[in-house]
Amino acid sequence: MIDSQDQEIFALHEGGKITVNSKITELTYDDLAKVYTPGVAKVCQAIAHDPSLSHKYTIRKNTVAVLSNGTAVLGLGNIGPLAAMPVMEGKAMLFKMLAGVDAFPICIDAHTVDEVIAIAKALEPTFGGFNLEDISAPSCFEIERRLQEAVQVPVFHDDQHGTAVVTLAALINSLKLVGKQAQNVCVVVSGAGAAAIACSKIFIQAGIGDIILCDRHGAIYAGRTENMNASKEEIALISNKNKFQGTLQEALRGADVFMGLSGPNLLTRANILTMADRAIVFAMSNPVPEIDPHSIQDVAAVIATGRSDFPNQINNVLCFPGFFRGLLDGGAKRVEEGMKVAAAEAIASLVSGFELRADYIIPAALDPRVAPAVAEAVRKLCPK
Amino acid sequence: MIDSQDQEIFALHEGGKITVNSKITELTYDDLAKVYTPGVAKVCQAIAHDPSLSHKYTIRKNTVAVLSNGTAVLGLGNIGPLAAMPVMEGKAMLFKMLAGVDAFPICIDAHTVDEVIAIAKALEPTFGGFNLEDISAPSCFEIERRLQEAVQVPVFHDDQHGTAVVTLAALINSLKLVGKQAQNVCVVVSGAGAAAIACSKIFIQAGIGDIILCDRHGAIYAGRTENMNASKEEIALISNKNKFQGTLQEALRGADVFMGLSGPNLLTRANILTMADRAIVFAMSNPVPEIDPHSIQDVAAVIATGRSDFPNQINNVLCFPGFFRGLLDGGAKRVEEGMKVAAAEAIASLVSGFELRADYIIPAALDPRVAPAVAEAVRKLCPK
Repeated sequence: MIDSQDQEIFALHEGGKITVNSKITELTYDDLAKVYTPGVAKVCQAIAHDPSLSHKYTIRKNTVAVLSNGTAVLGLGNIGPLAAMPVMEGKAMLFKMLAGVDAFPICIDAHTVDEVIAIAKALEPTFGGFNLEDISAPSCFEIERRLQEAVQVPVFHDDQHGTAVVTLAALINSLKLVGKQAQNVCVVVSGAGAAAIACSKIFIQAGIGDIILCDRHGAIYAGRTENMNASKEEIALISNKNKFQGTLQEALRGADVFMGLSGPNLLTRANILTMADRAIVFAMSNPVPEIDPHSIQDVAAVIATGRSDFPNQINNVLCFPGFFRGLLDGGAKRVEEGMKVAAAEAIASLVSGFELRADYIIPAALDPRVAPAVAEAVRKLCPK
Repeated sequence: MIDSQDQEIFALHEGGKITVNSKITELTYDDLAKVYTPGVAKVCQAIAHDPSLSHKYTIRKNTVAVLSNGTAVLGLGNIGPLAAMPVMEGKAMLFKMLAGVDAFPICIDAHTVDEVIAIAKALEPTFGGFNLEDISAPSCFEIERRLQEAVQVPVFHDDQHGTAVVTLAALINSLKLVGKQAQNVCVVVSGAGAAAIACSKIFIQAGIGDIILCDRHGAIYAGRTENMNASKEEIALISNKNKFQGTLQEALRGADVFMGLSGPNLLTRANILTMADRAIVFAMSNPVPEIDPHSIQDVAAVIATGRSDFPNQINNVLCFPGFFRGLLDGGAKRVEEGMKVAAAEAIASLVSGFELRADYIIPAALDPRVAPAVAEAVRKLCPK
């Protein structure tokens, strides 16, 4: 099953990719009496007396859960919590290496919304925040909303909001490049899953003129009765101002921006040619984009994808490490909408002036300036 | 609340005592594509195809949960999961420093037996074992038993079995020192909590002649009807062969061993004088023993306590790190009774010959020989 070209990948995963270490590296009997019994009892009693001290004297100060039930892992679908673990470990690595956040993967065998919420809520005494990951839609919407209501630490669903933040950053710079104003722009979104809904919401928050979401049944509009669900109903009320009805391809005519968060090869060069001048195309389906970027190089003004082998990769890693760094440093109890837009603006601001080009609208995934900039933008918005 | 002499303790706890680190220390784009998307997907798929690979390619290979609901923390009682965290972090430190086991503290807000089991079971995809900690009796018995039935990784309640293993090790060497045979010995146990029940069971397993447990109402015997519970009923059937009825002090007359796992200052020098010749006294109540060891130096042949400022400290740290090292290395799916006795014998064997003295019956808490010896004893008993 494991061929030789994958051997290096498997070797890097052997025994897991993260490790838990003691902060003190040598242990004397004197230390033992301080970090363990009897000394530790004083710290326990202090926290029992003032629970807020748990954010000062325990790992909660700097530790988040990367929590998944494995129901929507990468492009692999519902492979379950056991098989999801390597992704969560990877996230934990990136949290630490890019932003100094201690993150621990929590893969849970839980399927219903109520189960996931109950388990996460029970884990609140352990963590300073929850980064939800790879939980399928529409459950993920309700889990995030209800969990954030239930706990006093921030909750962030990376697949939704991480994607939304980074996409908005790329869109801000793309519009700058093509000289269009956000309020005059129409964005057509392909997809109605977690990321598509979250992107649409942040675009509205950021002042984009209009958005038309299309699922496989065509445009979503207020009053559509077939193939709807709660999140489509909600987004229908705040998007598609003219209640356009029609296919994705029809919606695209005259649109300024295409935002693909759906599946491979949905569009042709001919479809892109029907868009407005200086069209912006983000084809983010992975690994195969909604349209082959090579086929529209001369048509679209800006092209972005989710892939690392094309320019302008929309990669969540630009958001989540710095975002939680800011939340933890600011002592945030919840994620506010404004933080997401501020994070996007912070990412966008790192590519400006002469640097900003059609093939460089967003910093590279490992650009070391990104996490500190995002962290500072988020921290400034944390309530005192 | 925090006086100056405690400042060093609190300083050591600031921000928590453990940290989560990436195993690779510098991240290139090439690494990113291997440990994260797209490479990671291959490992996920391999595990989805063969779930047993999770013990090879994820942190489950070397990671255990230190799980508590904070209902019986040290001598502090039910201080809750938030305030229990410093103890669990301390355990995690010791797991790593003494035996190379990655351990992560999981403090859960859960009170009923069913809740604790449901949450721990849901976490099975994340961990290679569960070290239960500081969960109050009698819930802890049912939680351990049912959780072990529900999961395919080992479950060990440290307060019970860690104490039992280390106590048995000390008892083995004490009997050697006083020249008595296990099968001829009568042990009087003060207490009927988690540790007392577990110690009694392991003594029976190890061939001790007879045991009389006493709670605050006196000796526990088959047929006693008042102040019983399920675990007392169970132990009554396999201990106190002659159905002795009477007080702790009465039970002690002629006994070979006193084993205190109860509360402070229950006994006097006069009580100890009624015991058999070459009496062995383990007064393990913490911080104040059942009897002041100084008052019986000339009466008891061997004295042990739970305190680090007397000789012969019975400290769980001698057991749990090496015990889980052995379980993980052996790929154990559950803890077997025989492993506990083998671990005790391994600890006892490290103090022998001329070294074995009344004030040195058990290795010191940080003796580096202990964890490897325990690990090897446990690993050898793991089913192939």
